[in-house]
Amino acid sequence: MSCEEAAAQQQPEQAEEKTDDPPIEEPLSELAKGGEISPAEEPAEAVVANPEKAPVASEEDVFTYRALVLTGYGGYEKVKLQMKKGKPSIKSGEVLVRVKACGLNFAELLGRQGLYELLPSPPVTLGMECSGVIEALGEDVTSRKVGDRVLVLSRHGLWQEVVAVPASQTFIMPESMSFEEAAALPINYLTAYMMLFEMANVRAGQSILIHMAAGGVGIAATQLCQTLEGVTVFGTASASKHETISQGGVTHPVDYRTRDYAEEIRKISPKGLDVVLDPLGGSDTHKAFSLLKPMGTLIVFGAANCVTGQKKNLLAMAKTWYNQFTINTLRLMHANKAVCGFHLGYLGDDELIFKTMNTLLELYIQGKIKPRIDSTYHFEQVGDAMRRMHERNNIGKVILLPEPKAEKEVENSEEKAKSSPEQGEMDDKKEEEVKKEESSQEGVKSEEN
Amino acid sequence: MSCEEAAAQQQPEQAEEKTDDPPIEEPLSELAKGGEISPAEEPAEAVVANPEKAPVASEEDVFTYRALVLTGYGGYEKVKLQMKKGKPSIKSGEVLVRVKACGLNFAELLGRQGLYELLPSPPVTLGMECSGVIEALGEDVTSRKVGDRVLVLSRHGLWQEVVAVPASQTFIMPESMSFEEAAALPINYLTAYMMLFEMANVRAGQSILIHMAAGGVGIAATQLCQTLEGVTVFGTASASKHETISQGGVTHPVDYRTRDYAEEIRKISPKGLDVVLDPLGGSDTHKAFSLLKPMGTLIVFGAANCVTGQKKNLLAMAKTWYNQFTINTLRLMHANKAVCGFHLGYLGDDELIFKTMNTLLELYIQGKIKPRIDSTYHFEQVGDAMRRMHERNNIGKVILLPEPKAEKEVENSEEKAKSSPEQGEMDDKKEEEVKKEESSQEGVKSEEN
Repeated sequence: MSCEEAAAQQQPEQAEEKTDDPPIEEPLSELAKGGEISPAEEPAEAVVANPEKAPVASEEDVFTYRALVLTGYGGYEKVKLQMKKGKPSIKSGEVLVRVKACGLNFAELLGRQGLYELLPSPPVTLGMECSGVIEALGEDVTSRKVGDRVLVLSRHGLWQEVVAVPASQTFIMPESMSFEEAAALPINYLTAYMMLFEMANVRAGQSILIHMAAGGVGIAATQLCQTLEGVTVFGTASASKHETISQGGVTHPVDYRTRDYAEEIRKISPKGLDVVLDPLGGSDTHKAFSLLKPMGTLIVFGAANCVTGQKKNLLAMAKTWYNQFTINTLRLMHANKAVCGFHLGYLGDDELIFKTMNTLLELYIQGKIKPRIDSTYHFEQVGDAMRRMHERNNIGKVILLPEPKAEKEVENSEEKAKSSPEQGEMDDKKEEEVKKEESSQEGVKSEEN
Repeated sequence: MSCEEAAAQQQPEQAEEKTDDPPIEEPLSELAKGGEISPAEEPAEAVVANPEKAPVASEEDVFTYRALVLTGYGGYEKVKLQMKKGKPSIKSGEVLVRVKACGLNFAELLGRQGLYELLPSPPVTLGMECSGVIEALGEDVTSRKVGDRVLVLSRHGLWQEVVAVPASQTFIMPESMSFEEAAALPINYLTAYMMLFEMANVRAGQSILIHMAAGGVGIAATQLCQTLEGVTVFGTASASKHETISQGGVTHPVDYRTRDYAEEIRKISPKGLDVVLDPLGGSDTHKAFSLLKPMGTLIVFGAANCVTGQKKNLLAMAKTWYNQFTINTLRLMHANKAVCGFHLGYLGDDELIFKTMNTLLELYIQGKIKPRIDSTYHFEQVGDAMRRMHERNNIGKVILLPEPKAEKEVENSEEKAKSSPEQGEMDDKKEEEVKKEESSQEGVKSEEN
């Protein structure tokens, strides 16, 4: 095992930040080269399931949809926008969802580098969370109906315009929730909630350190801490993000770049902290442990320190691995501390996920949580979206939209029923994001294959 | 560091059990040899504080009291009953307590072997918990009054007839609580409560493994689990104790002697457990970790496997140390598990202890917890008391009584006001214990020194 998948579940906000306006690399090189679309790696099952229909041009045959497919390990260009052919077949217990928005997670950045072992080998469609509208029901599905707005969780495969998923992996969206919010919620909020309330048992009046407080999990955790009275939140982020995270509930924003954050925290809270959420790994985990007060809890849920550039960095991985926190039980006893590991991908407890998702949706309805959308990108801009997260420029969630950009050169006639995209909550970064869109604009041709 | 103090906070019920009627070794050799009393190692402060009074035979001068003093490291005979001279002085903020009953903890067994680093070097008076009646108040004490029945917590020094302690280390006993119960409650129930509800956050419907379920912490933890709905308790104990621990709330008693307890538990609970409390250490900690389900919590609070015979066993210590559970954060992440260490002695959070003690006393008043007294021994029988715990014959708490046995050969004239000992709840082992008393009876002469 390596530190590979360790960093898989968070959006690193920390680590080196580059210039605000990085040069555009060929993020979707195939498209840029004149709009050729790679063949879909996973033939839609309708086609496979009904080979005898091939001679007749049925509705399934002419139906195509856009999907973001990882075609190999490497840089941004390895994620390609492809056209899949044939409407996905729906098995018993499944529903067909017209996807409106998708969440980008750090797991996909790692997966692209070949560092996320839960992702099947390329070619594979990415995407662990999305939102959309149910378009068709499989047999035995009674809990959902056509037209239901749902959010969806999966191990991968959701970054496509339509997707067939088990109804049990869908959750009805609250009426007031936008598709962007729905796509932003599952992974980050499940991770934050389970760490805070299942593992750490955070209580009123306690203190907590949230690293990468401007990232998706960081913002979710900060909001969830506000559901308790008087929780003191320390949040690390670069100085430019302090105002925003303060508004979100961080009591003490800490700039980890210009000073030793542990020292800063000790000055304010000399007795130590009740909880530290650590997505960094390596030497930061040692600091985290030392910052805990007796009866405190450290939860490690990533090893973002492993990941630096666009491609696998063996040196960073080795360093993080070498510094990995290891502890024996006697030291834990002397310290009266708890050390936990959390990784949603390895959890495998559907019942707990189901229960927690329902709790989160209830909290949303009560106005206690609200995903913060950093920026939205169309599928053809996935490279830019990934770069934004990779370079830690986001404050909140980066969202991918399946529908082509407004300057569509081709309209898919089968998709006229498709509703216009909901914009959801846009933040103060929206303007910057729009500029980026402009700079990276590329023509997209949707072709049947 | 070694595994020394690791086993310090529990009463081992597990491990090898010997015959029911072990040969009596010279547990209080000085007394047995004709009742000589060793000089007290810690001159009562009244004597020190008022040297000018020495020529006059003041009340302080003639006042003496019995104390159990560790005189060196080794077997049972190293704990000696001594007479201290001069009433303990009471500093500002302190109270003088007439001790009625004391709790015996595994820490004292370890301390006697030189394996409990929190205990000062001999000569030192032992005793971390007791109950009694307040006899006098120091300056500035307004929260207590003379005649209050209190239980007392301290790092050591409570095994004596009268003791001066900070009022803040005393807690008013509920009216219905016996002195034996009060002496049995603090260490075991604080340990169990904090592990279950501060660290593990046990909730209704969960499952838990309690090792040494017939020991003091085991019984406390079992009772505390009954305060929640539908907690499934697995409890290891020798078969002869199963009926008793079942009555106390253990759902599945497991005999660890005749079969592999982990295998037994997996048969009943194939998905694993939510919580394991591990006072054993060594290879048992590995089993404990493997028994957890995802999101499960392991709490190590001892290394009873270190301790075998009456004296330090280097081989057992080395084996336990060699097998000590060590884990890195990546493995924790893959497993989605929590590993905690707990040791009340190292906690150092008076506020938390105070809060928890009050919670426990409230639970006692509500009838939700009730310490189970295994047996009571007079101070002069401390060797027998230690042997009973060391050989894992107890079910519940072993209590020490400061007053001399009924067949007192000397009555201390200063102590006429002393009330007769309360017997508290006696269990079905009482009869056996009485037999032991008879077999080990020794004359005690109380002398002024």
